[in-house]
Amino acid sequence: MTKNLEKNQPKVVILGGGFGGLYTVQDLKNTPVEVTLIDKRNFHLFQPLLYQVATGVLSPADISSPLRLVLRQHKNTKVLLDEVTDIDPQTKQVLLKGHEPIPYDILVVATGVSHHYFGNDQWSDLAPGLKTIEDALEIRRRIFMAFEAAEKESDRVKRQTWLTFVVIGGGPTGVELAGAIAEIAHSAMQGDFRSIDTSEAKILLIEGLDRILPPYPPELSAKAEKDLTELGVTVQTQTMVTDINDHIVTVRQGEQLKQIASRTILWAAGVKASTMGRILADHTGVELDRAGRVIVEPDLSIRGYPDIFVIGDLANFPHQGERPLPGVAPVAMQEGDYVAKLIQKRLKGENLAPFFYKDFGSLAVIGQNKAVVNLGFAKFSGFLAWILWVWAHIYYLIEFDNKLVVMLQWGWNYFTLGRGARLVTGEGQRISEPQIVPEAKEKVTSGSQSKFR
Amino acid sequence: MTKNLEKNQPKVVILGGGFGGLYTVQDLKNTPVEVTLIDKRNFHLFQPLLYQVATGVLSPADISSPLRLVLRQHKNTKVLLDEVTDIDPQTKQVLLKGHEPIPYDILVVATGVSHHYFGNDQWSDLAPGLKTIEDALEIRRRIFMAFEAAEKESDRVKRQTWLTFVVIGGGPTGVELAGAIAEIAHSAMQGDFRSIDTSEAKILLIEGLDRILPPYPPELSAKAEKDLTELGVTVQTQTMVTDINDHIVTVRQGEQLKQIASRTILWAAGVKASTMGRILADHTGVELDRAGRVIVEPDLSIRGYPDIFVIGDLANFPHQGERPLPGVAPVAMQEGDYVAKLIQKRLKGENLAPFFYKDFGSLAVIGQNKAVVNLGFAKFSGFLAWILWVWAHIYYLIEFDNKLVVMLQWGWNYFTLGRGARLVTGEGQRISEPQIVPEAKEKVTSGSQSKFR
Repeated sequence: MTKNLEKNQPKVVILGGGFGGLYTVQDLKNTPVEVTLIDKRNFHLFQPLLYQVATGVLSPADISSPLRLVLRQHKNTKVLLDEVTDIDPQTKQVLLKGHEPIPYDILVVATGVSHHYFGNDQWSDLAPGLKTIEDALEIRRRIFMAFEAAEKESDRVKRQTWLTFVVIGGGPTGVELAGAIAEIAHSAMQGDFRSIDTSEAKILLIEGLDRILPPYPPELSAKAEKDLTELGVTVQTQTMVTDINDHIVTVRQGEQLKQIASRTILWAAGVKASTMGRILADHTGVELDRAGRVIVEPDLSIRGYPDIFVIGDLANFPHQGERPLPGVAPVAMQEGDYVAKLIQKRLKGENLAPFFYKDFGSLAVIGQNKAVVNLGFAKFSGFLAWILWVWAHIYYLIEFDNKLVVMLQWGWNYFTLGRGARLVTGEGQRISEPQIVPEAKEKVTSGSQSKFR
Repeated sequence: MTKNLEKNQPKVVILGGGFGGLYTVQDLKNTPVEVTLIDKRNFHLFQPLLYQVATGVLSPADISSPLRLVLRQHKNTKVLLDEVTDIDPQTKQVLLKGHEPIPYDILVVATGVSHHYFGNDQWSDLAPGLKTIEDALEIRRRIFMAFEAAEKESDRVKRQTWLTFVVIGGGPTGVELAGAIAEIAHSAMQGDFRSIDTSEAKILLIEGLDRILPPYPPELSAKAEKDLTELGVTVQTQTMVTDINDHIVTVRQGEQLKQIASRTILWAAGVKASTMGRILADHTGVELDRAGRVIVEPDLSIRGYPDIFVIGDLANFPHQGERPLPGVAPVAMQEGDYVAKLIQKRLKGENLAPFFYKDFGSLAVIGQNKAVVNLGFAKFSGFLAWILWVWAHIYYLIEFDNKLVVMLQWGWNYFTLGRGARLVTGEGQRISEPQIVPEAKEKVTSGSQSKFR
């Protein structure tokens, strides 16, 4: 039953099975090209729900779709589990760690971003970020083990440091994390402990700018802050983190320095490009932005290399002269669709107008029954916004394969106030240091905490 | 809301939140005692379904119940996440790694067993066993990564070693694992790959005795072997493993030595007692069996120590003069029930007749629609046996809290031929060496591969 791909068709090689890469592959299903999708992992991750894995609501498998299963019917597509070490635009090859080089006619780079500590990479172990399943399980371990440690601690002051949770970064991820931790402490775990009262937990959300959810309209930021406060989160805006040391976060508010003692510090303050950005720049001379993202042409290709495309979070697409498109799933999906269409047009010798992002709005969830929605023509919050958020996420999950289990799990959690998947496994393991390209690191030490999401 | 347990009630300390420990705790809900349950993990694991996590059908959370959640309504019960380092029967205290000593009036030890390599502990990394969630995820990683490596391997001989799976030990766990791997290769993953045909995978099940499932009646062993063969498993009985080296398993069949090249070797051949057995023996002089299990009195206590009980897999209960009770969940549950009842009787100054195990039968599953059942008065196999197996497992899962999701997942898998939770996480991590007590190790090197399950 060994299947041979048809020969002599143009070879499209796609790096990364996230939203951008997967949408490109899926759109090419019936196109006469030979597609190779290369990823380090054997699954597509539905990242918008990763915070629910981190807070013990969902299991990793609930938001992961095996790439081979998703692409099983794509007879023109081969999935390769490997790590890209380099590319060679001259001979048009991708070099891999565990496989011979893969030649390409068209290369689509969609390898995304990782955490960005603004030159303080020593913080990564002290304040893990949330990008991978392993990150999520490590964060889950820290959150739940903090309550366990508090239960055992007889010293009142030390116990409070276990019951203090600091989330750094007031973008959507930070808001989701802080809201979810508050719900755990104030409702899901009520009554689980004997020595501590989990509702005495302090959850701090720290943001450098003057409001949380800075990409949203100010009234939605205000609403989100109000909702978070009701859930029991202390929101501190205009607060810059200046140092993180074992269990102390030092922040600056105006001229004042303040120290917060906490055993659980989470990072949601920024991202930087994956190493592929640097590799592409070295070989093609393409310009990178401060976060190491590749500044792409209007058709998402690299200047001078019309056969190399960069899409998703790794791409910096200067949108209509405004600031670059945010690193969110809808942008990656539309970029994937666009590149697939461009490839189809090229095969026919036709052209395609430059990429244009259709913004259908943005959603951020704060907690049960609480979300904010900005559709541009309408802004709203509360239960209706939350229903829209649930609907949108289920809708996109269904596209791949999980959905049913997630729907059931959510329904269950909704009525039971969340028991979820709060088991802690792999104790004592530490998340590994994120890969840092020294050059990219230098580029991003300038410090302002911009958010791309 | 800090809750204080009532003072001056007898203190019952239970070590281990498996079936034995949890049943004891649950039965003591309304008994005027102060219960402390100590476990290293924050969840109860439904071990009979662990092989489904290892083969990517279920997620860890599907078979795990958070102990605090299960015991939330037990106001007389405190859960403590910690590791027992020692016990002191003279001062009646349990010593912990991260907490001050816990005094007890009655101690129930239910810490179970781990893998047993019969003196060849160097095999543990080469052929992992299946006892914990981490074991299951490591085995899952090896199984699915073997197919990925085969897909990339161009050398035919090397590819076959990736497509060869050796399961050592023909007890229920080995049968379940071999059957599940065969189903993955022959149905679930059909069509997922482009270069390999997963149905060319070889799955070997190796057993030292003359038939698989040795505790079952011979006709059920024969039926199980027939079913496995149909699924594509090669069953090799009267085959002893003499060596495991990186990718070679050496076996002896009669006088003949044979080598099997395989990249995925799994261990299901034996268990040995947890370190608590040795600790108890050192302090009380109680006799241990060859596998380090504690030989208990008719009331499950330790000779000379009527306030210390050992239950579950760690206990060797000489059943009606026959061989010890097997290390299965029903035995642990009934022993937990018994000890709880004995405690209740003692509080009233009454006695209880010695423990007696009611054997309601045993079940082993081979694959979809395939199982064997021995009810004593009736033996049967096939679809009806499988339905009984499903029903029994759902029934016991419901006792704690998971059930609904598992039922849905199974229903889903049944009709889709299994997509499951086959994502692989934590790449490159190795399971840690199991803890070995040197003394216990000496005791168990004599070599015959008895199975306790």
